[in-house]
Amino acid sequence: MQRILNDPDNVVDEMLKGFVKVHSDIVAPTDNPRVIKRAVIPAGKVGVATGGGSGHKPAFIGYIGENLCDAAAVGEICTSPTAAAFLDAFKAADQGKGVACLYGNYSGDNMNVKMAIKMAKKEGLEVKTVVANDDVASAPKDQAEKRRGVAGEVLMWKAGGAKAAAGGSLDEVIAAAQKAIDHTRSVGIGLTPCTLPAVGHPNFEIKPGTMEVGIGHHGEPGIEVCPLESAAKMAERMVNVVLPDYPFVSGDEVVVLVSGLGATPVMELYVLYDEIEKLISGKGIKIHRAYVGNYFTSLEMMGATLTVMKLDDELKKLVDMPCYSMGIKQN
Amino acid sequence: MQRILNDPDNVVDEMLKGFVKVHSDIVAPTDNPRVIKRAVIPAGKVGVATGGGSGHKPAFIGYIGENLCDAAAVGEICTSPTAAAFLDAFKAADQGKGVACLYGNYSGDNMNVKMAIKMAKKEGLEVKTVVANDDVASAPKDQAEKRRGVAGEVLMWKAGGAKAAAGGSLDEVIAAAQKAIDHTRSVGIGLTPCTLPAVGHPNFEIKPGTMEVGIGHHGEPGIEVCPLESAAKMAERMVNVVLPDYPFVSGDEVVVLVSGLGATPVMELYVLYDEIEKLISGKGIKIHRAYVGNYFTSLEMMGATLTVMKLDDELKKLVDMPCYSMGIKQN
Repeated sequence: MQRILNDPDNVVDEMLKGFVKVHSDIVAPTDNPRVIKRAVIPAGKVGVATGGGSGHKPAFIGYIGENLCDAAAVGEICTSPTAAAFLDAFKAADQGKGVACLYGNYSGDNMNVKMAIKMAKKEGLEVKTVVANDDVASAPKDQAEKRRGVAGEVLMWKAGGAKAAAGGSLDEVIAAAQKAIDHTRSVGIGLTPCTLPAVGHPNFEIKPGTMEVGIGHHGEPGIEVCPLESAAKMAERMVNVVLPDYPFVSGDEVVVLVSGLGATPVMELYVLYDEIEKLISGKGIKIHRAYVGNYFTSLEMMGATLTVMKLDDELKKLVDMPCYSMGIKQN
Repeated sequence: MQRILNDPDNVVDEMLKGFVKVHSDIVAPTDNPRVIKRAVIPAGKVGVATGGGSGHKPAFIGYIGENLCDAAAVGEICTSPTAAAFLDAFKAADQGKGVACLYGNYSGDNMNVKMAIKMAKKEGLEVKTVVANDDVASAPKDQAEKRRGVAGEVLMWKAGGAKAAAGGSLDEVIAAAQKAIDHTRSVGIGLTPCTLPAVGHPNFEIKPGTMEVGIGHHGEPGIEVCPLESAAKMAERMVNVVLPDYPFVSGDEVVVLVSGLGATPVMELYVLYDEIEKLISGKGIKIHRAYVGNYFTSLEMMGATLTVMKLDDELKKLVDMPCYSMGIKQN
């Protein structure tokens, strides 16, 4: 395991120390060592909280910032934060107008968020949730409530965070974030597994010369293992999973987000995007804005995800709002 | 080779197509397919050009943008751009006040920049250069002119680009960029080799369980191969190479840049930074600003570089100037 670590069991705490030092203009620590908040949260806004397991950088703490999230609960590697951490993240985000908790659909997160909401309620703090489920490959369309949240969460945070920054009420922030994720579909292709520092070897396998379509960020099984293909063929596979599911059709205007899974050279993400753009534009769908980079990763996994969000006037305005965080800076 | 490619020999052109599509708010293509320029270059400023081999994303085209570079020449993977590409980059950057070419010390780049400057002179275009040589491990201090340029180039572009944006003359831009690199030292530690797409296997070796201190971005030999160490020990090695060379001493104010080499999880870069910060602060040196992320990479190499720049009032002002590019966005 060729990695930069001290005690593998302590990597999250050590990472957080470094993160807070580097980004002190954006974030601040809290009394709970597993909760990071915005350095300055504008008074009177709806709080936007999130949280999730570590190892997906910039997610989740990298999306704390201006017109994005106000606080995040931090879990161990690929493990949900505790209910106590979610509760403290809600409190850190709260400015008296309630808190929108925008997170991804994983059983541990669901359980801990629910417990944290109960505890918050007892303390008089209103928290509502949006649960991202953009990963098309993780369950059939008629069981969309079982689908996982992946890189589409970035667009959910973008929309919800913008709505909150614009003075939206808790219900309006929830509605905007829910609309964002309802209009969003994603799929990933994995080319290599990843190694959890405390384990020391991959806990799932992708054989060299093959790739796994629809694989999850924690190695959850995808929909097909097939021989490694060209970027053009990968783009075709991804587009053919994502577009029909919504469905996105000619005349639609969309945001496209291509995220690397961690170790794929960024150069190759642009090669992949070039192919994706040709396919989507070729169908008469207009790409309003594209994000290409490492937006939602899985340690040193190789591969990429494609996320497409259909825009309406409201979502376009929210996505176009400038923002400033470690993970996304947009003028 | 688990990579996202079509024709490996065509990866640079395909990457450029995707890059220009995604970042059309920042960059534009030119008549030379291997030259990218800023979408809008403010009239009357000194042009700032750069260039280098591909595979080091965000370098080099990722540093074209507001208050940074105006144009970049693009080479094949790990190969200098042609003299013709450098010449066309100069022309693209030129706004009638001359062009500062800020690039790294590699024999191919040196040769092609020199040829391009001769050709530019014939056409009445004045070009002056700064050649980055921040890599301490690549030659002894008394042969500093032989040292390679690495991630310190980012700070050179930051300073030179800011000076040009502030209305500096060609000589003032050159002086600021030269001062930036003269005040800067870097070192890298490699944990894995990288694979050039057209080759298909690594062209140098780092044995699992070992690491190479001082390795170059193209696998150039370092100063020591040793057993893989903890993040704390790696930080100590890096700091002990970089600080004495300048030397940086108690009372100094510095910028610290920690860049991943490509495939190291960003989480681990923060772990490394936390250790580096403790060592540097412990010596009474004040860190004014820190950058941590993938700023200057080598495809899917694992490892990291440490760059330290000593600030004076001028450099502090230049580094603090906001900027906006794919590679660095700073409010």
